[in-house]
Amino acid sequence: MKMTALSTPRISDSEFANRLKKTAEQVKAMGLDALIVHSNEADFANVRYLSDYWPLFESAGVLIFPDGNAALLIGPESETFARSRTKIPDVRKLVEYRESAEPDYPGIAVDTFASLFTEFGHPHPKRIGLAGWAVFPLPVYRSLQEAFPDAELLKADDALFSQRMFKSAEEVECLKAAFAITRLATDEVIAKLRPGITELQIAGIAQNVIYSAGAEYEGLPQYVLSGESSAHAIGRAGYRQIRVGDIVQLNLSARVHGYSPSIGVPVVIGSASDAQKELLEFGLKAHHFTRSLLLAGTPASEVARRYDEFVRDQGYSEYQLYGPCHGLGMIEVERPWIESTSSYDLKPGMTFQVDTYFYAPQGSPLAKKHGSVFGLRWENGVRISGDGPAEWLSPELDHIVETKA
Amino acid sequence: MKMTALSTPRISDSEFANRLKKTAEQVKAMGLDALIVHSNEADFANVRYLSDYWPLFESAGVLIFPDGNAALLIGPESETFARSRTKIPDVRKLVEYRESAEPDYPGIAVDTFASLFTEFGHPHPKRIGLAGWAVFPLPVYRSLQEAFPDAELLKADDALFSQRMFKSAEEVECLKAAFAITRLATDEVIAKLRPGITELQIAGIAQNVIYSAGAEYEGLPQYVLSGESSAHAIGRAGYRQIRVGDIVQLNLSARVHGYSPSIGVPVVIGSASDAQKELLEFGLKAHHFTRSLLLAGTPASEVARRYDEFVRDQGYSEYQLYGPCHGLGMIEVERPWIESTSSYDLKPGMTFQVDTYFYAPQGSPLAKKHGSVFGLRWENGVRISGDGPAEWLSPELDHIVETKA
Repeated sequence: MKMTALSTPRISDSEFANRLKKTAEQVKAMGLDALIVHSNEADFANVRYLSDYWPLFESAGVLIFPDGNAALLIGPESETFARSRTKIPDVRKLVEYRESAEPDYPGIAVDTFASLFTEFGHPHPKRIGLAGWAVFPLPVYRSLQEAFPDAELLKADDALFSQRMFKSAEEVECLKAAFAITRLATDEVIAKLRPGITELQIAGIAQNVIYSAGAEYEGLPQYVLSGESSAHAIGRAGYRQIRVGDIVQLNLSARVHGYSPSIGVPVVIGSASDAQKELLEFGLKAHHFTRSLLLAGTPASEVARRYDEFVRDQGYSEYQLYGPCHGLGMIEVERPWIESTSSYDLKPGMTFQVDTYFYAPQGSPLAKKHGSVFGLRWENGVRISGDGPAEWLSPELDHIVETKA
Repeated sequence: MKMTALSTPRISDSEFANRLKKTAEQVKAMGLDALIVHSNEADFANVRYLSDYWPLFESAGVLIFPDGNAALLIGPESETFARSRTKIPDVRKLVEYRESAEPDYPGIAVDTFASLFTEFGHPHPKRIGLAGWAVFPLPVYRSLQEAFPDAELLKADDALFSQRMFKSAEEVECLKAAFAITRLATDEVIAKLRPGITELQIAGIAQNVIYSAGAEYEGLPQYVLSGESSAHAIGRAGYRQIRVGDIVQLNLSARVHGYSPSIGVPVVIGSASDAQKELLEFGLKAHHFTRSLLLAGTPASEVARRYDEFVRDQGYSEYQLYGPCHGLGMIEVERPWIESTSSYDLKPGMTFQVDTYFYAPQGSPLAKKHGSVFGLRWENGVRISGDGPAEWLSPELDHIVETKA
């Protein structure tokens, strides 16, 4: 196994400063008195995007005023850790960001929202935007309500999203490095997949490769989903032993400086049954069809509609769960998705995962033919180009992998 | 490296059924019309405790009525995965539990809170308890407010906490198995710690061992914190190469069926400096002193006060950040902590991590003497016994580990 770390690019300090500046401009343009961004251990992206800090156990926030002043908000235990990572030098401890075990921390001095807003010269905010709405927790929300009973608290994810949906050259370098590490792990795992080893043991082998090769973490809990579990759209590796005849839905992911792409390859243990082969081949065809649609200027909804039509025309709608692509960046699945309801056009600099997932559910013809449910995922990343089809960010997937049984 | 999996005990179906039954009784006793429990990928414990389901990307909830009826609430993509794991057979998809990327999922049928409460015969709830308050997100909260504008929504973590703070024989078996795997990883890592390897590469080695030996996941992101990073109370492994003279704050953790203990051992690369040795020895002494205080019937606040006194009397208060123990179970840090503000007595069946963390901050005598900041953690798990001192759940830590440089 390769033990030499690959190169691990980083986001520069000037890019972090620019992100904060642009966000403050958005805060101003949206008529907000302040923005509070929230992240937790699993959904870390928004706070990390602005500060490079990435919490665990505790959660974290960034407070940004229209004048550009900002503070990183952390829990009582993370101070030395946060100060060693943050690009926002003003770091404040608030009890609202403590662990879910809710310790009291007697004797540890903390700030409050009221004291912070006063100190920053905004003692009576009227409109406070909240970003990270999907994970914004009640303790922070309730404290804001209590501190500022007259203020309107509103969803303001767009203050960040408008930037985050376009990836800079530095961001693309991080994605490419993470793809390269993920590819190493995928190759190593394919070489070691054999009957008798468990899904979780394979996950451990993948983890060892990604850390050895320079990842900072897994981009998602490594998917090693075999047999009937291969039908999970979202899943976790388990104690099941790999068997001859399985499709293993392999979706590995390394994270580099916060960027979390994944590579999805279905691996057949032995030889594919006719039903497996049919869906594997159709999936790969659909995967490449999607990429052919990813042209700058095309409405995202049109990509989704044409993909849905393609799947329907070829007779595979009953094997489809969702649309063809989702945004790629810090979170392996981030905004925007490409769905029939999407309301934006593809533009250069956007990055997506072409996530081609199909499954043969209980009672479907292919499940009956194969003798059980199964599924598969072909997944790879792209960047929308200025002209021509989207650029693959990792070598394209072009054949069905069958291991020796 | 040992590749044979250790035994991995599980929580029985009857124990899951009993947990749900007891929770419903609590819901009734608290005068609630319903309880909604929330978990996310990182803070998974409450939902898993009741259902065995453990989400990723999407979040999850459990809805429980006083009559014992219950449903598992999931996002649109997790259905086959959730059904393969859940002990609560009634599984419902709600858009509120979708990923933070907030896809629309056109064409996927979902339930709503209004339809669910009506179906379960409680169309007009007046008091709805919320458990998992610390991570309870706005989309679920706001939907409940909109569906039931006249209902009171109140924090109700105690509905679960009153059970979760006492560990059953099955839970202790899971903890012990996870400790045994963690011990294997710790031994392997100590053998491989050498100058030049990075903290993250060590984390990868630990991950490979824990998965090979039968863990289902890491209990916490593996702490491999060297040099100045050893002073972090909470931290993440980074790209720093291990050097001679480091203390490596090693805190590894394997998870078995949801149970996440950790073992914290400071490892000296080469020989400890006088300042390092002094704090390492004092820390180990304090670690064992704490355990001697952990007797059934003792108020938790008294343990914390006596520990604080001990640290003060020995002259190390400036090196202390928090109290001596925190609850141990599904989350490596869970309720209750042992703090001077605690209001409960120790009772048989409670489990704790004896978490003995000290650090020499900037400007402190020991940091000056050593030439830089450093820190360390001695951490091990205990169960409060019926009589006598608490039982270690993993072999006791009894000496300072110095590796060959």
